[in-house]
Amino acid sequence: MSKTYVHGYHPRENERLQDQAGTLVDLLHSDTAYPPGSLVLEAGCGVGAQTVTLAQRSPDARFISVDVSAHSIAEAKRRTEAAGFTNVQFQQADIFALPFRPESFDHVFVCFALEHLSRPVEALAILNKLLKPGGNMTVIEGDHGSTYFHPESRAAQMAIHCQVELQRLAGGNALIGRQLYPLMVQADLEAVHVSPRMVYVDSSRPDLVDGFTRKTFTAMIEGVRESAIRAGIIDPEAFDAGVRDLHRTAEPDGVFCYTFFKGVGEKRRRV
Amino acid sequence: MSKTYVHGYHPRENERLQDQAGTLVDLLHSDTAYPPGSLVLEAGCGVGAQTVTLAQRSPDARFISVDVSAHSIAEAKRRTEAAGFTNVQFQQADIFALPFRPESFDHVFVCFALEHLSRPVEALAILNKLLKPGGNMTVIEGDHGSTYFHPESRAAQMAIHCQVELQRLAGGNALIGRQLYPLMVQADLEAVHVSPRMVYVDSSRPDLVDGFTRKTFTAMIEGVRESAIRAGIIDPEAFDAGVRDLHRTAEPDGVFCYTFFKGVGEKRRRV
Repeated sequence: MSKTYVHGYHPRENERLQDQAGTLVDLLHSDTAYPPGSLVLEAGCGVGAQTVTLAQRSPDARFISVDVSAHSIAEAKRRTEAAGFTNVQFQQADIFALPFRPESFDHVFVCFALEHLSRPVEALAILNKLLKPGGNMTVIEGDHGSTYFHPESRAAQMAIHCQVELQRLAGGNALIGRQLYPLMVQADLEAVHVSPRMVYVDSSRPDLVDGFTRKTFTAMIEGVRESAIRAGIIDPEAFDAGVRDLHRTAEPDGVFCYTFFKGVGEKRRRV
Repeated sequence: MSKTYVHGYHPRENERLQDQAGTLVDLLHSDTAYPPGSLVLEAGCGVGAQTVTLAQRSPDARFISVDVSAHSIAEAKRRTEAAGFTNVQFQQADIFALPFRPESFDHVFVCFALEHLSRPVEALAILNKLLKPGGNMTVIEGDHGSTYFHPESRAAQMAIHCQVELQRLAGGNALIGRQLYPLMVQADLEAVHVSPRMVYVDSSRPDLVDGFTRKTFTAMIEGVRESAIRAGIIDPEAFDAGVRDLHRTAEPDGVFCYTFFKGVGEKRRRV
């Protein structure tokens, strides 16, 4: 985990992740709720963008949320407490060196974390070992290769490619969403079921045009401008042209598409 | 309509279109049913791949199904009669010169037809004029730019690009699915609602691996091999490598994604 976290740790980036969770919360989380008394590990909680949602939807479950970044953990803790939830315990920990005993958790939840890991199957296998028999694991990831829009624009695709390339250079994979099924199967989860969660945006949904196309996706791409130029992946003019074309898709005749993937798998029962 | 129909008119191609409708019928058509006694125009019925489904789901509606190809109309008629339906009347006609009076139809249905037209808004506007006030129009189209898969493959994307390019050279647009909303709005339909219908295929769904990834999508791409090579878009080795990689996505650790778009809009009421 010595690699750079591609989204950065800046306040504005945190705000974007929070906006994202606010806009997408139903699409991604409406079918996740844990029974009273169950113990759930949230692995890679970041700044707590999903933690509040988890705690809210399962008020009688107990959560342990971990992240490799002490700074993120502090922010996640602040937010969760500010929202009035007392059923979450935070702990700074590396996903590859978790301080928990095997079969300690009823459920594991991982959201937007695998995309940053160079060994995602190994991480899932470690998390799988922490599950009690009969427990399940939920994994949610985006896939930047699922992005397409109208008007089509090569410049915009090149700007998006900067994010994909930076994430790859940092050891991650921005195209991981589509791979959830094989990754979870390889990590020995069983009864794996993956469902795509497509965000389709046209001007009949001004809330999504603003909340997703502009403030979530395009803002995320805009956020890697300096890093992409510094890494020599693109020149400033080409990047800015791409971002202009992404904003163009938010015009009244524009359309924007992006897909998240949600996978649920069960701990294999002993025979 | 003097341009070449990119899918061809060969029996094997017809079989593929039929297979496609069989596999995708629920995804695309389960929310389309017309009330008893209503008169529905199916524009661009082709070989009747959707006609049987329409007639089956709305047994007490009456359909007039038109296509520019007399040969396709004959095949569509044969199939619909073989399936025992008597509520469909077939007529050979060009969508830009339809022999119907304004406001003749309660509903209009268009599926996989706009993608072949160089003036899709004009076609929709013509069809809109045929609708009675209060009637609605349903449009379904695919979008080859929505295709992505695991393992990722540039060769496979190049083979898909051949189909997109051939369709473009024939005056059509294989990326039209994402554009349904603006096209329908430009054709003066109102209350337009577009919903994506994503086909997500992993090896937990062997029926879709075989029925969609292999027999629908990859078979369609394989079908343009000779045309693409003859048009100088690609060389045989590159094309065959791409098709091999498409088949690779149907292996147990492969994933395949494609999205259709379905739009419904209403005839503007007179004020």
